[in-house]
Amino acid sequence: MNWWTIDETHDATRMSWVESARDHTEFPVQNLPFGLFSPAGATPRVGVAIGDRILDLRALAQAGLVPQSLAAACGEDTVAGILALPAPDRRTLRRVLSDLLCAHDRRPEVEPMLHAADACALHLPARIGDYTDFYVGIHHANNIGRQFRPDNPLLPNYKHVPIGYHGRSSSIRPSDVPVLRPRGQRKPPEADTPVFAPSARLDYELEMGVWIGPGNELGAPVPIAQAADHIAGFCLLNDWSARDLQAWEYQPLGPFLAKNFHSTISPWIVTPEALAPFRVAQPPRPEGDPQPLPYLFDADDQAHGALAVTLEVHLSTQAMREAGLPPHRLSHGPATNMYWTVNQMVAHHASNGCNLTTGDLLGTGTISAPERSGFGSLMELSQGGKTPLDLPTGETRAFLEDGDEVIITASASAEGRVTIGFGECRARISPAR
Amino acid sequence: MNWWTIDETHDATRMSWVESARDHTEFPVQNLPFGLFSPAGATPRVGVAIGDRILDLRALAQAGLVPQSLAAACGEDTVAGILALPAPDRRTLRRVLSDLLCAHDRRPEVEPMLHAADACALHLPARIGDYTDFYVGIHHANNIGRQFRPDNPLLPNYKHVPIGYHGRSSSIRPSDVPVLRPRGQRKPPEADTPVFAPSARLDYELEMGVWIGPGNELGAPVPIAQAADHIAGFCLLNDWSARDLQAWEYQPLGPFLAKNFHSTISPWIVTPEALAPFRVAQPPRPEGDPQPLPYLFDADDQAHGALAVTLEVHLSTQAMREAGLPPHRLSHGPATNMYWTVNQMVAHHASNGCNLTTGDLLGTGTISAPERSGFGSLMELSQGGKTPLDLPTGETRAFLEDGDEVIITASASAEGRVTIGFGECRARISPAR
Repeated sequence: MNWWTIDETHDATRMSWVESARDHTEFPVQNLPFGLFSPAGATPRVGVAIGDRILDLRALAQAGLVPQSLAAACGEDTVAGILALPAPDRRTLRRVLSDLLCAHDRRPEVEPMLHAADACALHLPARIGDYTDFYVGIHHANNIGRQFRPDNPLLPNYKHVPIGYHGRSSSIRPSDVPVLRPRGQRKPPEADTPVFAPSARLDYELEMGVWIGPGNELGAPVPIAQAADHIAGFCLLNDWSARDLQAWEYQPLGPFLAKNFHSTISPWIVTPEALAPFRVAQPPRPEGDPQPLPYLFDADDQAHGALAVTLEVHLSTQAMREAGLPPHRLSHGPATNMYWTVNQMVAHHASNGCNLTTGDLLGTGTISAPERSGFGSLMELSQGGKTPLDLPTGETRAFLEDGDEVIITASASAEGRVTIGFGECRARISPAR
Repeated sequence: MNWWTIDETHDATRMSWVESARDHTEFPVQNLPFGLFSPAGATPRVGVAIGDRILDLRALAQAGLVPQSLAAACGEDTVAGILALPAPDRRTLRRVLSDLLCAHDRRPEVEPMLHAADACALHLPARIGDYTDFYVGIHHANNIGRQFRPDNPLLPNYKHVPIGYHGRSSSIRPSDVPVLRPRGQRKPPEADTPVFAPSARLDYELEMGVWIGPGNELGAPVPIAQAADHIAGFCLLNDWSARDLQAWEYQPLGPFLAKNFHSTISPWIVTPEALAPFRVAQPPRPEGDPQPLPYLFDADDQAHGALAVTLEVHLSTQAMREAGLPPHRLSHGPATNMYWTVNQMVAHHASNGCNLTTGDLLGTGTISAPERSGFGSLMELSQGGKTPLDLPTGETRAFLEDGDEVIITASASAEGRVTIGFGECRARISPAR
């Protein structure tokens, strides 16, 4: 059974007895993302978002309302047990949860296990093992490359290799944890020597995150046709970047302190099952582009391996909040602007025998659209700082200022299907200490 | 109290009642490295190497022979508890162990807790959180840089920034786990398109590893004068590298699949206390080199921040073993060939607020001497494959062949002090699957 099988849990007619899950919500019963939450003053536990509530899976398991074989995973202290489930078990759990939340006769039993989401804390879902960031947003790679190499923005390997690199897992935080402006070495172009100072070119990067489920053994590559078996879910990711630190430090081994001071993820894990109705064909490669090597090619993946997800970034400045203005939209665009699919990322990562482990996180890299309205970073929107953006307050932004809050959201939609969301990936910049 | 304080545990006159610890051993009572071991058929537990024996710290703690405050750390399932100890507690434990292993009247109690090392399995000491590899071996950077940029081998940032990048923690294995030759994309210079095939330029890299002890909070940099408080020990590290994969994939974000298929570490953690007598001044920077920025400069670190450790690499081929020949020495040289100290690596890593955590591993990067006899990789020894090495069997090597075994060893020595070793970092290449 493939994880993109659509079943009755996806039916638009399916309605939860949780009223807030019926309309104008990112979390209808067709979604059911997993997360780690604490009701006020209580210990963290695994939950599922439903409307403006969170269902306590530990309580559900203790009440014997999930199959015995899944109770242990539901009762763990993190979402790791859920992530480790084979896809068929994750599907089973989805159906059980969907049924419980739709069957009115189960409401008396289940309703006491719901918590108001806005009274709960949301945590990092699981301890992240290794974090890898890819670079599959080809328009981003083009935009950034053009700033350095106007005639030759894409390097020769780009269309052959899903370029990626290892990032820092310890500094990944869930939404709403403030981001301290980092200090670091940077060398202003006109200076002879570097200075150590707060970053003056702090940026965000719009990405999607991929949670690894069951892993592979060291030395045992993952064939691309089986890549999906290793994917447990998706989130949104802001790969905060200090462009001035990055420019000075990144050669020859890649970005390091420019990125590892903080990364923010949305705390809900949207499952492959929830996204099943939103799979679409990978856009065809432009005429003349090379075909993927066989270890990266799967006809099914080409036919269904992209996601009809729309990504949005909003900015809220201190002045905007004080003026009562809503966040200002910086960009919006489709997640199909990825040159490589998520399955290709997974298959490539493990192609040398590298072992992926449950709880690893993969980032897609910045996803930009070809047109300016869909650029996924300020570095692109402001052309490296040369053309600052105008904001509704009369402020301008080349890079992020202290107090700025960046909010990434996303929704998946398709004809005849209930639209689902990812929750927010949101954080505010604090001044350097 | 600084971790380099020398006390009576370092006295050369101090002798253990463990006979094998008295002479011709890497593990005299002046060393006492920590590791995770299993006696035949038993579960892993924390131990200390002494001569050709391993002392079971769990058993010691259960017998009430360590201070109550340290018993929990000694009884954990990994060395993480020991790593997390503040330096003063680690020192206390060292003195207790040293006394128990030297006082003849404790022998009857303690001897039953010793296991023959050659009958035990040695494991990865702890779950590694994040793994960062630096590039502080300046002669290596020069040698490699020269192959790409003959006129300008070192990039402009090298003498200002302790260059580093994130590596893969999941694929780090202890000594003796075979290394599968990785497959991957490489583009032969004469070819138009890349191929996916087993690496034909497999190499080793001679490095030291640094285990992080107590961590720092996200957003709270580590001042260089306090960097040593965060270092729990040292090991040897082989950063296996597929040079052909690396050349094709590494731009613009650094090495990825060329490195993350496997890294080997020596399983014993040699403590800062054990290395205290072997601290030496950091070699002065050549005339004209920039001084480190203030966040990287500490007078004490410059005076004592290098280690009088000699590193050696040996190669044993299948043919050599069949001919009964001993491993052939490829290189030897001092660990003082590092442009940056370990404290500078730690302070730089955390300078942007990045949080180091207990069980993180830092690699130094390849440590090469300026002269060929101390080159730390085949890429350097064979000049990128152009001048293969002659071996005693009449074989030659430009890069590693299947069946080749690489053995890294090291010893710390100083006038009037008992020489200590690190154990072996050893692994053999298996053919690609």
